[in-house]
Amino acid sequence: EETLDSIIKKLKEALSNHPSTVTHTLSCTSVKASGNLASCSAGMIATGCSCGFACGSWNIQNENVCHCLCPIIDWTLARCCQLS
Amino acid sequence: EETLDSIIKKLKEALSNHPSTVTHTLSCTSVKASGNLASCSAGMIATGCSCGFACGSWNIQNENVCHCLCPIIDWTLARCCQLS
Amino acid sequence: EETLDSIIKKLKEALSNHPSTVTHTLSCTSVKASGNLASCSAGMIATGCSCGFACGSWNIQNENVCHCLCPIIDWTLARCCQLS
Repeated sequence: EETLDSIIKKLKEALSNHPSTVTHTLSCTSVKASGNLASCSAGMIATGCSCGFACGSWNIQNENVCHCLCPIIDWTLARCCQLS
Repeated sequence: EETLDSIIKKLKEALSNHPSTVTHTLSCTSVKASGNLASCSAGMIATGCSCGFACGSWNIQNENVCHCLCPIIDWTLARCCQLS
Repeated sequence: EETLDSIIKKLKEALSNHPSTVTHTLSCTSVKASGNLASCSAGMIATGCSCGFACGSWNIQNENVCHCLCPIIDWTLARCCQLS
């Protein structure tokens, strides 16, 4: 006969593969583009930017586009991250 | 009559809204301030910094304050992220 | 006598400490090194980089090594993050 304890045990086993047990990890990639803008791919968010000509002034538009602010910029790199 | 299988089925349904099934996402925002310091709001952590006058030298204090290191800095931007 | 409702209630209690309920948080730390490279420790990923001599041009190698690109660099800082 099933007891409550045996039912709980079986259910815990059943739930061990429950989607909620998926372990998230942080993954990031870099996107480099010519000019003063670089866009993360869909679903990713920019955590920082790098600019050509040694420029360290940038902002981020719409949370996923790096915009380098110096007058002359040859390339822009977006650091793009997401949970996976 | 309830069988163990039917109980498990019902419980899985009940647990589908369990808090553990919440999917975390990474969210980020930018905080810009005058001077050489910019602080993330409570609960957020700095993942990178941007500085005025093209400066790319910075450090992060207490994990949530961007500190631009060049002698003359007019503004500082902190890129601030959290799970949500 | 146990009813299905009472069993569900007990199981929800039992599952409240289920590993899946662990709340992830984003944690970051900075690693500063002499020269033009700085490496995150194992398990961490770089979200941005800072460079000496005001340089804002960098890339990230293998997702966890900051590489400052200006000709003369005295130090490099990697901003390293993970879920914990």
